[in-house]
Amino acid sequence: MCRWLAYSGTPVLLDTILYRPQHSLIDQSLHARMGVETTNGDGFGVGWYETDPDDPDAVTPAIFRDTGPAWSNRNLRELARHVRSPLFFAHIRATTGTPVQQTNCHPFRHGRWMWMHNGAINGFDRMRRDLVLAIDPDLFSAMEGSTDSETMFYLALTFGLEEDPPAAVERMAGFVERTGHEHGVEFPLQMTVAVTDGRGLWGFRYSSQKASRSLYYSTRVDTLRQLHPEIEFLRGVSDETRLVVSEPLGDLPGAWNEVPEGSYGVVEPGGDHLRSFTPQAA
Amino acid sequence: MCRWLAYSGTPVLLDTILYRPQHSLIDQSLHARMGVETTNGDGFGVGWYETDPDDPDAVTPAIFRDTGPAWSNRNLRELARHVRSPLFFAHIRATTGTPVQQTNCHPFRHGRWMWMHNGAINGFDRMRRDLVLAIDPDLFSAMEGSTDSETMFYLALTFGLEEDPPAAVERMAGFVERTGHEHGVEFPLQMTVAVTDGRGLWGFRYSSQKASRSLYYSTRVDTLRQLHPEIEFLRGVSDETRLVVSEPLGDLPGAWNEVPEGSYGVVEPGGDHLRSFTPQAA
Amino acid sequence: MCRWLAYSGTPVLLDTILYRPQHSLIDQSLHARMGVETTNGDGFGVGWYETDPDDPDAVTPAIFRDTGPAWSNRNLRELARHVRSPLFFAHIRATTGTPVQQTNCHPFRHGRWMWMHNGAINGFDRMRRDLVLAIDPDLFSAMEGSTDSETMFYLALTFGLEEDPPAAVERMAGFVERTGHEHGVEFPLQMTVAVTDGRGLWGFRYSSQKASRSLYYSTRVDTLRQLHPEIEFLRGVSDETRLVVSEPLGDLPGAWNEVPEGSYGVVEPGGDHLRSFTPQAA
Amino acid sequence: MCRWLAYSGTPVLLDTILYRPQHSLIDQSLHARMGVETTNGDGFGVGWYETDPDDPDAVTPAIFRDTGPAWSNRNLRELARHVRSPLFFAHIRATTGTPVQQTNCHPFRHGRWMWMHNGAINGFDRMRRDLVLAIDPDLFSAMEGSTDSETMFYLALTFGLEEDPPAAVERMAGFVERTGHEHGVEFPLQMTVAVTDGRGLWGFRYSSQKASRSLYYSTRVDTLRQLHPEIEFLRGVSDETRLVVSEPLGDLPGAWNEVPEGSYGVVEPGGDHLRSFTPQAA
Repeated sequence: MCRWLAYSGTPVLLDTILYRPQHSLIDQSLHARMGVETTNGDGFGVGWYETDPDDPDAVTPAIFRDTGPAWSNRNLRELARHVRSPLFFAHIRATTGTPVQQTNCHPFRHGRWMWMHNGAINGFDRMRRDLVLAIDPDLFSAMEGSTDSETMFYLALTFGLEEDPPAAVERMAGFVERTGHEHGVEFPLQMTVAVTDGRGLWGFRYSSQKASRSLYYSTRVDTLRQLHPEIEFLRGVSDETRLVVSEPLGDLPGAWNEVPEGSYGVVEPGGDHLRSFTPQAA
Repeated sequence: MCRWLAYSGTPVLLDTILYRPQHSLIDQSLHARMGVETTNGDGFGVGWYETDPDDPDAVTPAIFRDTGPAWSNRNLRELARHVRSPLFFAHIRATTGTPVQQTNCHPFRHGRWMWMHNGAINGFDRMRRDLVLAIDPDLFSAMEGSTDSETMFYLALTFGLEEDPPAAVERMAGFVERTGHEHGVEFPLQMTVAVTDGRGLWGFRYSSQKASRSLYYSTRVDTLRQLHPEIEFLRGVSDETRLVVSEPLGDLPGAWNEVPEGSYGVVEPGGDHLRSFTPQAA
Repeated sequence: MCRWLAYSGTPVLLDTILYRPQHSLIDQSLHARMGVETTNGDGFGVGWYETDPDDPDAVTPAIFRDTGPAWSNRNLRELARHVRSPLFFAHIRATTGTPVQQTNCHPFRHGRWMWMHNGAINGFDRMRRDLVLAIDPDLFSAMEGSTDSETMFYLALTFGLEEDPPAAVERMAGFVERTGHEHGVEFPLQMTVAVTDGRGLWGFRYSSQKASRSLYYSTRVDTLRQLHPEIEFLRGVSDETRLVVSEPLGDLPGAWNEVPEGSYGVVEPGGDHLRSFTPQAA
Repeated sequence: MCRWLAYSGTPVLLDTILYRPQHSLIDQSLHARMGVETTNGDGFGVGWYETDPDDPDAVTPAIFRDTGPAWSNRNLRELARHVRSPLFFAHIRATTGTPVQQTNCHPFRHGRWMWMHNGAINGFDRMRRDLVLAIDPDLFSAMEGSTDSETMFYLALTFGLEEDPPAAVERMAGFVERTGHEHGVEFPLQMTVAVTDGRGLWGFRYSSQKASRSLYYSTRVDTLRQLHPEIEFLRGVSDETRLVVSEPLGDLPGAWNEVPEGSYGVVEPGGDHLRSFTPQAA
C-alpha cells in the first residue's frame, strides 16, 4: 500500500501541503490511518511544475525521488521549504515486493506527463511478460523500473494517454483485467491513480473487486472559506485550488469528499468533474 | 525508541533469530508492540563474533550497519542466511533527532567490545559538550557519530569498561545524571544497554525516573525444553544459550522474563546472574 | 567499463584478494590502468560460496551489492575481513547509462549460479525488447534490473547454461549478434564474462569486433612458487588455486597470462583448460 | 582533495554552470585535472539562495547534499534543470578519511551563512579535541559531522564570522596553526574556502606551507564579452557576474585568473577586491 497527494491551484511552497497539515503526507509515511499497511517507508517521490517556466508549452516537471523513508529525508525537507509550485505530486511507497530503488519510486514521468499509483496488479509476476509485450516498442526501453505501476503507465501511454487520458486509462484497466483473467486471476486490478500533463489533473479510483483503496478530493475553496473563515490558508488560495489525496490531511469538517467507487475526477481550467470509470477493451 | 537483541550460545545462523521467530526483530522494525514509537526504520546494525576464529584472543567483531529500514534490506537478509555466530548483537533504530547515518547506527565497536542502546539522554543537546569533554582524550577522535548512545559508550570506556563493565556503566550513569542535574534536567537518563567483549554479555536496564524501557531475557534452555519438548530449535542449542531482547520474539509461555527495573544481567561461561544497578560517582 | 575478479581455490579471507594486493580490485575502482574509463564508482558486488556448508549439493551463494563506490564502502571492508571462501566473485561497476541501483550490480544470481560481465551490448536500447522476448517465460519475472549484463545471463540460462555453460554462452552470443545485425548494429557484443555454479568456473573473452576487453588468469601456483619462493601467500594455497581478473593485481613477473581473444577458460576439479569460443545459432 | 565552485551574479539555472561547461564541476568529479586526487566521488552538495525570496533579510539558503558521486546523481541533475539562483555554491568531495555521510558533505550552513572548503587540517585527529573545545559552547551542538572543514566553520563563527568574515577566518587560521604547532605539526593548515551570507562572497586561499591548493576567479564579464563577442552566455549576464572555482571550467583564453597564494577575494555589490590574507592570533 502506498499513499499519495496531488495539488493543483495557487502556487504554494511544497512545505505548506507536505509537512504542515495536521495529518500530512509525511506524517502518513510513519502512521497512515487507512489501509492495511500503516508504514510507507520504502521510498518516496515528488514531482512539480514550475510556477513561471520560460516556455509554458514545453514544460517538463522536475522529479525528486529517493529510496529511504520520507519522514527522515533532509533533502526533501529542504526542497519543500524552497520550491513553490502550482501543480505537484507527492508519493510515499510501501512495496508489495518489488525492489526499493529510485526507478521504482513514483511519480513516473514521460515528457510532460506524470503518473502515480496506489494499489497493485494481483498476479503481476505471472502476467508481467504479457503486459510489457503489449507496450509500444518505441516506449519499451524508456521503462527503467520493475513495478506494476510503471507498467500501467506505459500501457496507458500505449493506449493513447496523451490524447485522451480517461479513455487510455480505461483501456489499460480493461487490458490488465483481460490478461489477469487469462492467467486465472479473479480480481486483477486494484488502483487509485493520478495523472497530469501540467495543466489537467485526473484522479482514478477503481478495482476489479469493487473494493478500491480510499481516495478523496477537497471541497471547493470558496465553500470551505465560508465554513471556516478563520483558516488563514484558505484566504490565500484561489477558489479552484484542489487536493486529491489517498487519505484526508486532517479533520476539518466539510473539507474532504470521497471519490466514489469506480469513478474519476478531472481538475482543469474551466471546471472540475466527477465521472464514471469503466474498463474498456484495448 | 529503538529495539535490540543480543544472542549468546550455540552458533546459529543469524537468520534463525533475526527473521524466523513469530515476532522477530525484523518484524519489530515495522510493528513494535511495546513503547511509544512502533516504527524503527532509521537505520540498523548487526555485529557478530566468528564461530571459529584463528586467534580467539584477538577477535574483533564484524559490524554491518546501514541507514534504511531493516525490513527491506537485501544485504542484511543475505548475511543472515550465511553468517553463523555464537555471539551477536542486532539493533533497529528510531532516531530521536540525530541524523540517520551509518556512524549513528548501533552496535558501536571499540577493539573487541560492542555496545548498543535503547533510550536517550534527556537534554543531550545542552549537555553534549560537557559529556564529550569528560571522555579520555586518547579516545576522543575514535568517536565518529553524534548520538548520545555513542557518547555513553565512550564515557563507559573512559570509566573502565574493559576492566569492570558493571562498575564502568554505573559510573557512566552517575556522571550523566550529575551532568544532567547541573543543566536542570530532572531525569537525565533512560537506557537499556547491551555490552560484550565476545565472551561475557551484560544487559542493563535503568532510568533516572525508575520507568525504564522494557528488557527481557530468555529462560534457560533446559527448562524451556521440558516445557516445550515439541520445539525443534530448543533441541539443537545448549542449555546456556540466551537471548536478551527489548521485547519478546513471540508468545511462547514461560520463555521470557523481565529484567527488573534498575538491574543488570550477566551471561558468561560458568553461569548467569541478575544484579542490582546503582549509578556511582565517576 | 567495469572490472571484475573471480577466485577459486584454497579458502581465504576475501580481504586477502580484494584489498591487499598492490593493484587490488578496490584500488582499481579508483584507478584502473586498462580501458577507457579509469573510475569504477557506480556500484559493486561480491558473491561467495561458503567453505563448509551443511549441504554441499544445495548451496546458494551469498550476494552483497551496494550502489556507491567500493573504495569507501565500510560494510564491504568489514565483510572482507570476516568472510572466508573457496570460490568468490567481485565486481566494480562503471555504468554505460543504466541506473545505478542494487539490481543492476553484479554478480547476478540464479539458484546456485552466479554471473558477472564487463563490456556492453552495443545498441542495447534498440534491441532490448527483442532480447527479453527470447527469455524463457518462466524466467522472465526473475529479472529485476535493467542491464544488458543481466539480460545476457537470462538468455544464457534460457539456452541451457545449467547443462552446458560454454555451449549456452556461445548460443547467447550468437543470438545477441544476430539480433544486433537485424537492428543494423555492426559489432553488437563486447564481453568478458565469468560464470560459476559453485564448483566449476568459466571465464569468457569475446567481442564481435575481435577487440575484446582485457582478461587474465593466474599462473599455476606450483610454478609461481618456484619462481617466487619468498612470497608467503603462495605457500599457503593449493596448486590449483586460480584467479581470473580484468587486469592483473600487481606486477609479479610470470604471474599473469592473457586469456586469448575469442576463447574461454575452465577452472574445475580435475584440471584447467583454455578453449576457443565461437558464437552459435541459438 | 575536493573541488568547489561559487557563483554570484545574474540568476541562472544551476545546470548552466554545473553541467554545461566544457570542464564542468560534474566532469571534474570524475576527472579533475589539478591536484593529487583526480576522483571526487565521496559525496557532494549544492546550496543556493532564491532569486526572489519573500523576505530578503531573512533568507536561508537551501542545501541539497548526498553521499554518492555527483556524476551519477539523478536528483542533482533534476534540480540543476529547475532551480534558478543568483548566488550558489557547489562542492564535490574526496574524503581524506572521515566518513562518507551527508553531515560531512559541503556546503555547511549556519543561519543565512554557507561555508565550503578544499584542503585539510594536517594532524586533525590529534588536534580535534582542542579545536572543538574552542568553539562557542552555544554553537557546539549545532555541529553534526566529523570533518575538519565543519570544525573550521564553527571556529570562524566563534571568532566573529558574521561581523567581519576576513578577520574571523584569519583568526581561525591563526588558531589552527597555533594548535597544530603545539601538537608538533609543522604545516597545520591547507585551505581554499568560500563563505557567503547571501549577499557578499569571500574566497580564501592559504596554506601554512605557502603551497596552497589552486583557486581561480573569472574575469569581469564586460572584459570577457569584448574578448569573446560570439559567446552567447556572456550576453545574458551582468558585468558583475563572477565565478570562483577550484579549477577552470574550460580553456577560454582570458577567462580565468589565479587567486594569489595567501590572499582572498571579495565579491559584493559595489565592487570586487583582492586582499592579502594573514593568520591572526585568536
